[in-house]
Amino acid sequence: MAANKSKATPISDIGEFGLIERLTDKIKLRNPSTLKGIGDDAAVLDFKDKEVVVTTDLLTEGIHFNLMYVPLKHLGYKAVVANLSDVVAMNATPRQITVSLAISSKFSVEALEELYEGIYLACDTYGIDLVGGDTTSSLTGLTISITAIGEAEKGSVVYRSGAQKNDLICVSGDLGGAYMGLQLLERENEVFKVNPKLQPKLEGYNYILGRQLKPEARVDMLKIFNNLGVKPNSMIDISDGLSSEVIHICKQSKTGAKIYEGKIPMDNEVKAMGNELNINPIVAALNGGEDYELLFTVSLNDHEKIRNNPDITVIGHIVDASEGTMLVTTGGSEIELTAQGWNPLK
Amino acid sequence: MAANKSKATPISDIGEFGLIERLTDKIKLRNPSTLKGIGDDAAVLDFKDKEVVVTTDLLTEGIHFNLMYVPLKHLGYKAVVANLSDVVAMNATPRQITVSLAISSKFSVEALEELYEGIYLACDTYGIDLVGGDTTSSLTGLTISITAIGEAEKGSVVYRSGAQKNDLICVSGDLGGAYMGLQLLERENEVFKVNPKLQPKLEGYNYILGRQLKPEARVDMLKIFNNLGVKPNSMIDISDGLSSEVIHICKQSKTGAKIYEGKIPMDNEVKAMGNELNINPIVAALNGGEDYELLFTVSLNDHEKIRNNPDITVIGHIVDASEGTMLVTTGGSEIELTAQGWNPLK
Repeated sequence: MAANKSKATPISDIGEFGLIERLTDKIKLRNPSTLKGIGDDAAVLDFKDKEVVVTTDLLTEGIHFNLMYVPLKHLGYKAVVANLSDVVAMNATPRQITVSLAISSKFSVEALEELYEGIYLACDTYGIDLVGGDTTSSLTGLTISITAIGEAEKGSVVYRSGAQKNDLICVSGDLGGAYMGLQLLERENEVFKVNPKLQPKLEGYNYILGRQLKPEARVDMLKIFNNLGVKPNSMIDISDGLSSEVIHICKQSKTGAKIYEGKIPMDNEVKAMGNELNINPIVAALNGGEDYELLFTVSLNDHEKIRNNPDITVIGHIVDASEGTMLVTTGGSEIELTAQGWNPLK
Repeated sequence: MAANKSKATPISDIGEFGLIERLTDKIKLRNPSTLKGIGDDAAVLDFKDKEVVVTTDLLTEGIHFNLMYVPLKHLGYKAVVANLSDVVAMNATPRQITVSLAISSKFSVEALEELYEGIYLACDTYGIDLVGGDTTSSLTGLTISITAIGEAEKGSVVYRSGAQKNDLICVSGDLGGAYMGLQLLERENEVFKVNPKLQPKLEGYNYILGRQLKPEARVDMLKIFNNLGVKPNSMIDISDGLSSEVIHICKQSKTGAKIYEGKIPMDNEVKAMGNELNINPIVAALNGGEDYELLFTVSLNDHEKIRNNPDITVIGHIVDASEGTMLVTTGGSEIELTAQGWNPLK
């Protein structure tokens, strides 16, 4: 691989069919539901008596990613993870993806192989089959479109709309890391632009950099729910920030919510970076997004089952719609959450 | 609608959520296999004991379409049709689509509504459910990514790889129209650029313009096969031109083919436009693409069943791989087909 890094074969040298062959010849199919993957007009899947879950995402250069500081391999991995996370948020197991790329002439064959290394790594990690896609050109930049397909036992899908009054509002993992990692990368990128010889100062921030560059989908939570004997009443993944996701759950469930600032789980690196950059870490958790943790509600009766689980934190509870969707600060005052968060960052 | 055409509401006026609501509030679900459409992390589908077919396409402005002469409504319709055609080419019935858009700031809300009018018209025409997608920004131009999902009875899927020696090679409909329609539009666009006051000369070419601007997927062929009691051994849709599709079938089936120039069905408008533009119409059929007809092979034993069907033309037969993939000209000589066709246009 090291020798390849310095090569930059123009795509025109091997043509469209050559490129597709080179990018897809490593594909292994792992799932019995995948009857036929890449190579025909369409993939063929067989889910027997399962329900099928489908989600799709479109990422464009300059809007969703900046190739100045996001390595292509990480970009490929993350693009897949973002879609798997949506499948998991339905309480379903991801099985297949399709990947479509539009690429401008600035990309070499080797650059796309790096992107695909990340895509394949995600497929390996999560046991996913890459079953189709489309590779085409664009006038400028890179566009990645991924569709993920998953399966669920009949009746086990969890919707955003199922939250009930008095449900406990929970999150998996911790929040704000991906956003703080991005702030750090952007700061160092600015420094680099001024003086390319300066080494970036990234030490001590491995966790938040990892959260930004190599996030994971919480497929493991499906097993945890199963082991605990808990089925959430509602669920969504945290891709746009906690604030916006709480509002989605409440709007679709026709409820309100109270979440408690002091209970929102955050890693120490998030707090330290917040201090360094003068950003309130709670803002990163509420509005930052890209953490790909799960936000879900469970019946109050399930409290005993979840209370000691290290992957789950109760951050609030569901109330009547008339009470609004409120953040209760550590000082005890209540602030209404907004889709852009209570302290608009963007 | 007429009053709206002159309006150009910036997307920023209504925001991302407002835009999605405006574009998707007309959605009706039609298929029993669609349990949940747009509005959650993913769509939920239930195919019972069917096999599921998935295909995806990515279209970028300036590469796949030119908004100078392709109306947005037609673009939306065609983008859907191209994907449905891939489902049909598997001998499966299309049921659901997801649509993702990346849009730059030059597009107004009304422009996107026009695009969606075309998408909805295709959904109406073919009884398809729009079940998901992603709407996001791009730095330049418009990108459309569509994934189509279809269903087939167990064991009824037809692959590219099933062609057998002595099979008859058939096409539905006629070929070359979409390509000749594009040539006409491009010619008139050049004239327009020189003198915007000149009216385009499009009279007498309704058929080829329709083939380019509003192609149809041959979903009707599924019923025709059924009524005739014929199951093709192999099938592909003609999106890149007959030449390239014959090669795909032969490569995957490990066979050769002979197709006969004189048998390739072409409309009179294709021939007339060819004369006018000095393009051999056979070139349009072999290399033009975008006709979205079906290329398929049937057992020689089925000849009686298909021979009088007005929608089906036998254009050749499958031979040993060692004999190559050949076009037999009206003069009787044999020319090897290439992926770009025997007379490279592009």
